[in-house]
Amino acid sequence: MTPGRPVPPPLGKPLTAAETQETRTGPGTLTAAMGATSAESGLRPLTLARRVPKDDDVEIDIEFCGLCHSDVHATRGEWGSRPYPLVPGHEIVGRVRRTGAAVDDFRAGDLVGVGCLVDSCRECDSCLEGLEQYCERGNVGTYGVKDPRNGNAITQGGYSGTIVVDRRFVLRIPEGMDPAATAPLLCAGITTYSPLRYFDVEPGDVVGVVGLGGLGHMAVKIAKAMGAEVVVFTSSKGKTAAATELGADQVVLSREPSAMEAAKASIDVIIDTVAAPHDLNPYLRTLRLGGALFQLGLPPSDMPPVSPGLLIRRRLAYSGSLIGGIAETQEMLDFCAEHGVASDIEIVGASGLNDAYDRMVAGDVKYRFVLDTKTLHTPSEKADA
Amino acid sequence: MTPGRPVPPPLGKPLTAAETQETRTGPGTLTAAMGATSAESGLRPLTLARRVPKDDDVEIDIEFCGLCHSDVHATRGEWGSRPYPLVPGHEIVGRVRRTGAAVDDFRAGDLVGVGCLVDSCRECDSCLEGLEQYCERGNVGTYGVKDPRNGNAITQGGYSGTIVVDRRFVLRIPEGMDPAATAPLLCAGITTYSPLRYFDVEPGDVVGVVGLGGLGHMAVKIAKAMGAEVVVFTSSKGKTAAATELGADQVVLSREPSAMEAAKASIDVIIDTVAAPHDLNPYLRTLRLGGALFQLGLPPSDMPPVSPGLLIRRRLAYSGSLIGGIAETQEMLDFCAEHGVASDIEIVGASGLNDAYDRMVAGDVKYRFVLDTKTLHTPSEKADA
Repeated sequence: MTPGRPVPPPLGKPLTAAETQETRTGPGTLTAAMGATSAESGLRPLTLARRVPKDDDVEIDIEFCGLCHSDVHATRGEWGSRPYPLVPGHEIVGRVRRTGAAVDDFRAGDLVGVGCLVDSCRECDSCLEGLEQYCERGNVGTYGVKDPRNGNAITQGGYSGTIVVDRRFVLRIPEGMDPAATAPLLCAGITTYSPLRYFDVEPGDVVGVVGLGGLGHMAVKIAKAMGAEVVVFTSSKGKTAAATELGADQVVLSREPSAMEAAKASIDVIIDTVAAPHDLNPYLRTLRLGGALFQLGLPPSDMPPVSPGLLIRRRLAYSGSLIGGIAETQEMLDFCAEHGVASDIEIVGASGLNDAYDRMVAGDVKYRFVLDTKTLHTPSEKADA
Repeated sequence: MTPGRPVPPPLGKPLTAAETQETRTGPGTLTAAMGATSAESGLRPLTLARRVPKDDDVEIDIEFCGLCHSDVHATRGEWGSRPYPLVPGHEIVGRVRRTGAAVDDFRAGDLVGVGCLVDSCRECDSCLEGLEQYCERGNVGTYGVKDPRNGNAITQGGYSGTIVVDRRFVLRIPEGMDPAATAPLLCAGITTYSPLRYFDVEPGDVVGVVGLGGLGHMAVKIAKAMGAEVVVFTSSKGKTAAATELGADQVVLSREPSAMEAAKASIDVIIDTVAAPHDLNPYLRTLRLGGALFQLGLPPSDMPPVSPGLLIRRRLAYSGSLIGGIAETQEMLDFCAEHGVASDIEIVGASGLNDAYDRMVAGDVKYRFVLDTKTLHTPSEKADA
């Protein structure tokens, strides 16, 4: 997909009469899902009614869905109240089941992905630039928000058997990629890829990574694939070997002042994936002239203040970045396919999701859980949402 | 001057025998100055012995020197202890009196300037890129610091009759510029010009300016000259007319939530010149996608924390910037000459300096005091420093 592509989209090949009847008049697919019915419920079996695919829609049989830390926050109501029932999941990989009449870029059987976005206004400057994540009227997230082009139905995510998404927000998974290990690229991958590309990382640059979880381990792999030298900051000596295994050229123990002092003014860009409040000033000191620190995690309370003197004395930037646009997500998938980059995953079944959440909160996963949707129950005859 | 010019410099035209004798063997010039002898002394008449010009030196008869807020902090010991006696001043304009043997780019009578720097290591990556202000070994400020290439003598600034500076750190003042109104460009001008150029401001961009003092008024004029639309934020309705007179296209009252809300996501880059701690989040909300806020003033205590969510949701940058390099300062002077940009000044005599400091602290100047050095006393026969 290219940035700024025209709205409305070109018409695709019409469906056959039988297909049209099915998609236009048939019922939406009932599908099994795992979701929360309240902030305290944990995840439990639910049944979703997916909409009948419209002309531009792609219906996808989901194979795998990554478990993102934001799924935990959302289902537990830690980021403000959410509509329940709520089915999380925005690292979705599956195969096209059927397509609407105007879709000619996807066909049944294609391996595809869906990330954090399923729609946006398509008209603002951000959308026209292919930066749908920064849609000025607010993007439409993959779960838990109103979907204006679909009667303001609440979107429901990828811990489910199927999903229906407008073709503009469907990604193509390149040949040869492992579907399960690719799923986390749709959020963790693009969230780290985007700031590295924005900063224009190239061979010889030094990239720092703070936090070695789902996002951090992707940042290490992607930065290495871009040809950068990678420095992992960790508070725990025990993570040194793991960081090196992932490809880190250097590991700096962030609680050792002498190690931090030795790293002073040595790094071009830092990808900070820690979502808890923490002092950024020690990391800013490790940046070279003109360096930038991108904070990707959103802490639940105030961060300690950044020292303006550090920014002034080396013309640094303290920045943020939000996932990525659709065109850039496709670029990232193609880049990862070319460089053999995938997530390190642990596959879980539907019945293991609640335990997996607890382990995520405890930081006990290397580095991403992925739900295998074959383990979902059979959907009931009546939908919960 | 071009970035990265070779070290050591090419040899210039040799002086005549008479000139050589004068510069090599004659005594340094004794010159009148106004400086502090302690943090509490205020400014009082002193006599400085300037060094005998070395081969690469330019001796300058100072005509005007701007009064920068940092002069107040330094002489009053508010930025940590300083060596006394201390003669401040780093917005210097004057005429070349004599030059060393290796100087062929300046000659007696030339109108020249000296800003915040009089030397740097000349060898680090920053210096080789023409970013001497970010010298990795620490630049040599125009006053109050050790000067390694001159026996670690303490540098003394421009509230004085003469100064001797290496030719690499001497600026050429273009024909037709008013010497007094040009002096503040050497600090206030370049400090605001540099981040605007770094951000690559061009016609059609919207530039916000926070704080309408010495730096802020230069930011307005320079941004306008770059073709930008300029929005001035002020907490005081009384400053609206003054902002408009300077060229602001729009004035936003920063204490009126509705005015700040109306300015939301409308600005490309903000130049924040306020040196007191203040909440940046309301200003960050006025930035467009990819916007940047450059903080130029260094507050004496912590700033309220910046919200990472604001940075993340619009990929903003909270940045700093420090004066400018020598090549860029020359570029700025040429730009200001071309566009008729100068500082709005009030000229003061030596005996008025202490009152001027009090008025600066009270914000009672539009917009920069400039010392006329003709008002300095006659130097004594013995130097104080």
